[in-house]
Amino acid sequence: MRMAELSERSGITTATIKYYLREGLLRPGRRISATQAEYDEEHLRRLRLVRALIQVGRMPVATAREVLVAVEDESLDRHSRLGTAIWALPEGPGAGGPDADAAHEAAQLRVDDLLERLGWTFAHETRDDSPAYRMLVRAVAGLSVTGYPCTVEDLLAYARPAAELGVVDLDMVERYEPGSEQVEAAVALTVLYEPVLLSLRRLAETEESNRRFGSAD
Amino acid sequence: MRMAELSERSGITTATIKYYLREGLLRPGRRISATQAEYDEEHLRRLRLVRALIQVGRMPVATAREVLVAVEDESLDRHSRLGTAIWALPEGPGAGGPDADAAHEAAQLRVDDLLERLGWTFAHETRDDSPAYRMLVRAVAGLSVTGYPCTVEDLLAYARPAAELGVVDLDMVERYEPGSEQVEAAVALTVLYEPVLLSLRRLAETEESNRRFGSAD
Repeated sequence: MRMAELSERSGITTATIKYYLREGLLRPGRRISATQAEYDEEHLRRLRLVRALIQVGRMPVATAREVLVAVEDESLDRHSRLGTAIWALPEGPGAGGPDADAAHEAAQLRVDDLLERLGWTFAHETRDDSPAYRMLVRAVAGLSVTGYPCTVEDLLAYARPAAELGVVDLDMVERYEPGSEQVEAAVALTVLYEPVLLSLRRLAETEESNRRFGSAD
Repeated sequence: MRMAELSERSGITTATIKYYLREGLLRPGRRISATQAEYDEEHLRRLRLVRALIQVGRMPVATAREVLVAVEDESLDRHSRLGTAIWALPEGPGAGGPDADAAHEAAQLRVDDLLERLGWTFAHETRDDSPAYRMLVRAVAGLSVTGYPCTVEDLLAYARPAAELGVVDLDMVERYEPGSEQVEAAVALTVLYEPVLLSLRRLAETEESNRRFGSAD
């Protein structure tokens, strides 16, 4: 298809598509004349992912480019591509916290203890390079530093629903074709479902608060 | 206690505390001389919350001020204060998405259907003013617009772990004294546990991906 159709089918303006092409977020189309190029379904799919990362996930362009490198690495096996792509997602917002070396070290020990108790050996073995692991350590350190320290038991109580979400997410991912499509879906769904999850949790808290205290007062 | 002790006990510099005072995020201390004021445990607790919102939750100062208004509203009953404080938390990051009126309307119908099926009547009744509800609608619309539409069943699969988290969160909140302390904890824990949850979910996805595809390849 031509640029115009790619724009129409993706709902993304040609100006934005050209910007993504210039930034290397989208592979160039197949040249068919000096001024025209031909695009295919893969371009359409990739555009969808780029949009998820940048427009919804609010990821900086440079970061999105890094994520796409992991998505494109065809040398990896199925799990590695899928896992690496999710695993390489940069730390989310709110991951930062006040600097505190001592709190950081204690947090790391607590997180390692947690992963061991959960039997999450993969996450544990690859922890040194994992942004998700670093994000978790920083969040746990942030809790201590702000005066709301958490125990391993608190983290375990959180890990159980998180594990369920992992199963739900992979079930969704498996609806897509194995290969690039599935890896792209894994990354896009990981990012796109974050606000779904955070808003549902807040609604659930409000609901639970109403259940506990609503009629007693 | 004096400013110096407040700084030492909170781990926050006096310059930052003075900034919070100027910005109205912290109530002034009790004046004891022309140049000195006395602070108490309530100031210490409030500082903890302000830090959670601003330094960890990366909330703009003006937004944090709005949240604190809900926390301080003593005219409300226990549930209302707790619920309102969580419920008034501004939409989180990643909540934005491409504009799309049609997708938005369809998303709202789907979310209403979801809340009804879950029996979350409180969330449903108060939906018109709820940032969490708006955040959810926008996230669902974002999924459609980016080409990853979700069904009510997908949302239900997400709502179940979210409901468990609501229970875990309220259990944590109940460790604090009823009243302001509990409301502050509810807000702080809601914000501070967001990166914990998102990173645990990513680790769980990687783990689940390894479980499903790790040895098959």
